[in-house]
Amino acid sequence: MAGPLASRQKPERQFAPGQAHTCVFSESPPKLIVSPASSSLGQKPELKDLILMADSKPLLSLDGDPAAAEALLQDVFGIVVDEVIRKGTSASEKVCEWKEPEELKQLLDLELRSEGESQEQILERCRAVIRYSVKTCHPRFFNQLFSGLDPHALAGRIVTESLNTSQYTYEIAPVFVLMEEEVLKKLRALVGWSSGDGVFCPGGSISNMYAMNLARYQRYPDCKQRGLRALPPLALFTSKECHYSIKKGAAFLGLGTDSVRIVQADERGKMIPEDLEQQIRLAEAEGAVPFLVSATSGTTVLGAFDPLEAIADVCQRHGLWLHVDAAWGGSVLLSQTHRHLLDGIQRADSVAWNPHKLLSVGLQCSALLLRDTSNLLKRCHGSQASYLFQQDKFYDVTLDTGDKVVQCGRRVDCLKLWLMWKAQGGQGLERRVDQAFALARYLAEELKKREGFELVMEPEFVNVCFWFVPPSLRGKKGSPDYNERLAKVAPILKESMVKKGSMMIGYQPHGTRGNFFRMVVANPALTRVDMDFLLNELEQLGQDL
Amino acid sequence: MAGPLASRQKPERQFAPGQAHTCVFSESPPKLIVSPASSSLGQKPELKDLILMADSKPLLSLDGDPAAAEALLQDVFGIVVDEVIRKGTSASEKVCEWKEPEELKQLLDLELRSEGESQEQILERCRAVIRYSVKTCHPRFFNQLFSGLDPHALAGRIVTESLNTSQYTYEIAPVFVLMEEEVLKKLRALVGWSSGDGVFCPGGSISNMYAMNLARYQRYPDCKQRGLRALPPLALFTSKECHYSIKKGAAFLGLGTDSVRIVQADERGKMIPEDLEQQIRLAEAEGAVPFLVSATSGTTVLGAFDPLEAIADVCQRHGLWLHVDAAWGGSVLLSQTHRHLLDGIQRADSVAWNPHKLLSVGLQCSALLLRDTSNLLKRCHGSQASYLFQQDKFYDVTLDTGDKVVQCGRRVDCLKLWLMWKAQGGQGLERRVDQAFALARYLAEELKKREGFELVMEPEFVNVCFWFVPPSLRGKKGSPDYNERLAKVAPILKESMVKKGSMMIGYQPHGTRGNFFRMVVANPALTRVDMDFLLNELEQLGQDL
Repeated sequence: MAGPLASRQKPERQFAPGQAHTCVFSESPPKLIVSPASSSLGQKPELKDLILMADSKPLLSLDGDPAAAEALLQDVFGIVVDEVIRKGTSASEKVCEWKEPEELKQLLDLELRSEGESQEQILERCRAVIRYSVKTCHPRFFNQLFSGLDPHALAGRIVTESLNTSQYTYEIAPVFVLMEEEVLKKLRALVGWSSGDGVFCPGGSISNMYAMNLARYQRYPDCKQRGLRALPPLALFTSKECHYSIKKGAAFLGLGTDSVRIVQADERGKMIPEDLEQQIRLAEAEGAVPFLVSATSGTTVLGAFDPLEAIADVCQRHGLWLHVDAAWGGSVLLSQTHRHLLDGIQRADSVAWNPHKLLSVGLQCSALLLRDTSNLLKRCHGSQASYLFQQDKFYDVTLDTGDKVVQCGRRVDCLKLWLMWKAQGGQGLERRVDQAFALARYLAEELKKREGFELVMEPEFVNVCFWFVPPSLRGKKGSPDYNERLAKVAPILKESMVKKGSMMIGYQPHGTRGNFFRMVVANPALTRVDMDFLLNELEQLGQDL
Repeated sequence: MAGPLASRQKPERQFAPGQAHTCVFSESPPKLIVSPASSSLGQKPELKDLILMADSKPLLSLDGDPAAAEALLQDVFGIVVDEVIRKGTSASEKVCEWKEPEELKQLLDLELRSEGESQEQILERCRAVIRYSVKTCHPRFFNQLFSGLDPHALAGRIVTESLNTSQYTYEIAPVFVLMEEEVLKKLRALVGWSSGDGVFCPGGSISNMYAMNLARYQRYPDCKQRGLRALPPLALFTSKECHYSIKKGAAFLGLGTDSVRIVQADERGKMIPEDLEQQIRLAEAEGAVPFLVSATSGTTVLGAFDPLEAIADVCQRHGLWLHVDAAWGGSVLLSQTHRHLLDGIQRADSVAWNPHKLLSVGLQCSALLLRDTSNLLKRCHGSQASYLFQQDKFYDVTLDTGDKVVQCGRRVDCLKLWLMWKAQGGQGLERRVDQAFALARYLAEELKKREGFELVMEPEFVNVCFWFVPPSLRGKKGSPDYNERLAKVAPILKESMVKKGSMMIGYQPHGTRGNFFRMVVANPALTRVDMDFLLNELEQLGQDL
């Protein structure tokens, strides 16, 4: 049994044969170092003494048995395979097991106590956690912009977790420093850049914030030291369909939400370049200094793509940083058929792209890509911590990329994407993207054939937005309380489907429109059967409304 | 074979017997929906056609075989057990396999191509990634403030990755919304608070930024909307030993690094409260408005604990927000023996605490804890996105905690800590903390017994800072180039140990002191053998210097 501890109990082997390397043991028996009073026989030893008496034995083991650690992990992995990978992805199982919060608290027994629990109890806890969690890998989980389970990506995540390192230096993350650069290079190439910079961030919101911070720093490098008070009032521009992280970011970065100027969108949710031009002039007239436009490729609700070429023209004319929030739509760049939706993205200064969404890589995997080749990222964020980024290291310290970010420790987010890409190839990923588009189109066509379904608009991406009009409201459009009553349908059906566990799909109001469903086709395991199921299930759940 | 796809090929079982629920299949054969030109027999079909022809078959499977997904994951898990959990934690194996960057690039073959690879290739890639990665779980990895491998925490991470959800709503993370609250409650109780708020952040740097943003918002709620330009110049205070994230945060939040006023520390690295008082008066005299003091519990290099009671007195006198950056030292609160080092922490307004460091929970697990009970977190960061935080949901929407944060999607960081705590109990975790202290003390005492080792100072925590003085420099203290030559020793020894793979320990210059080693005792698997090894190995590596 070559467990982690077994080898610690006997003199250690030389790990590098041929190199003189002798391991010396502390020959003396364990002794109390700190405690002034050691316990004598017959007296109950104090906890402190016990601790010190024990300190020559490692604590990693479970009950002193090194094999138990492996056994535990084998058992937990077996549960994961059975309950998540097998049942969780099966359409014949529930997508969720709804419990009211108070009941769930009781079922989970969440309290953290002084006493530890047995291995059997721990395994039962893992089962309970999985049982009552929503299965985002289930083929009827349509609720978010992420779903599905890619086995290669999950394999990458498990390896990542087992290696447990931070992305900051080549010293402790040699593989991942090089791998991150290679993955970012590939993503940049798909944007259309042969050079540039980038980094993986903890989510698209923070990627967007990075873009905002970089844009203001590039224009006013003083800002880093002297702050926003040293600057004129700044203005940034985004459409009313943008993700809410733009406003959150403006507040967090000290710009204030007022600095976000909202540009009108057309009826399909695309930014209107003429209104952008107008808003820029307006801001300037009010004394603000425009510095950034954030366009969106794949809006959250409607899945709209802003016209990047026209927006880039405006940015060029006014000398503004163009950021493209392609957190959702960026993966479309993989498709030769559909990538025209992002035409002009190569003219951006920065792009946020979350492969954890449409590519099912797993939360989180969000790339901020930059066209910059002047080391802007490091100049903007660097602080040269001397305990981490020593300049007298024996290797090329430009490989220590950790000073590019505002985090210190940073998770490894590249391996899961890299491994999945190696397995699927770019072709396999392209096929997935194309299939998602095809299924969304299929759903839209099927939906038109049925009474009781109404598209909000023709989908251009994999968001299919529609109303379910229940029998009692059919043919009543135009009646005074129609909209109000229709808006109540989605919340009622949502409750029914969740409590039944049959599927999950999101809804929202939008502008002047009342609640409608937003179907998201992202899980690569989806088929037409799942699209048909969605429609049938809504019909059934809503038949008495 | 009940794989994820098997059930999709036959009519689906009712998932909730007793409820009328009929699954309807699309009876018609797969047909082309979009493509205008379908391929005829004998002609090579276009990719586009293939895609659409294929779209009734799911893509999740590996080569159409649903069992292959499970098999892959089983194989990868087997590799993880062998290579990381068994060998990676074994002292008889190397802690790292050093390769020069260019050679490593060749070995890894990082390029992402169009073609996918076979399962055998993918498994070999997993092996290579592990082989060339640093084993942070190895008992001779002393390089960072995190190390070791807790099997329960890793089990929690694997379950987390398999469930792949986001922490934002009760709807899609019912278990984790409740669990996060319970874990935060426990951490708050250890701080000394019976109520409050909090959230897990992607690392301590961002937890610290949150504290800064909350403090300014509490004082100037206008800031969220109107930005920093609407405010007087602000000043925050921290000691020269603080983590570099305070300055990074000030820059990112638009305050500018100049807003960070540096307070003197004593010879042990602790903030001097009298100088804090002095700096506050100075800032006020210069027209700045003090708003926050960031004290540190467990500084990065020396492991110093700022005197919180005295600092809290100063904050109280001046009405300042007291943040305690206890990212490193927070876990000491678990120890009845040592928690006095943080006396006064209950008087803080906010605390950052990273269980991923001393408790070996795995990257990342960083809690921001708040004493506030006025919903400050949500008021400061909330933006009420209507597509996510619908107010007409069928459950209590205060459970949708996602609007408390500046992220949108947010990883589940609570399960790994919760599961480890359930298994170890608070007692087991306390024992680990106490053992780390005892081992650090043991190392310091052993070090004093040997010629050629010099403590920078007596450790008060688990950071043991010392110089290794090689034979050629012994007895030469005071000679003109002594300091300069001594400073070159650590980088040379670091190169030797990394290339040999025997161990990893960090070094840094600090103030006027030249490079010294910082030993960190955090891995719960450490024993005195490992401390002795460290000393012996340095003696051997440096014998010819």
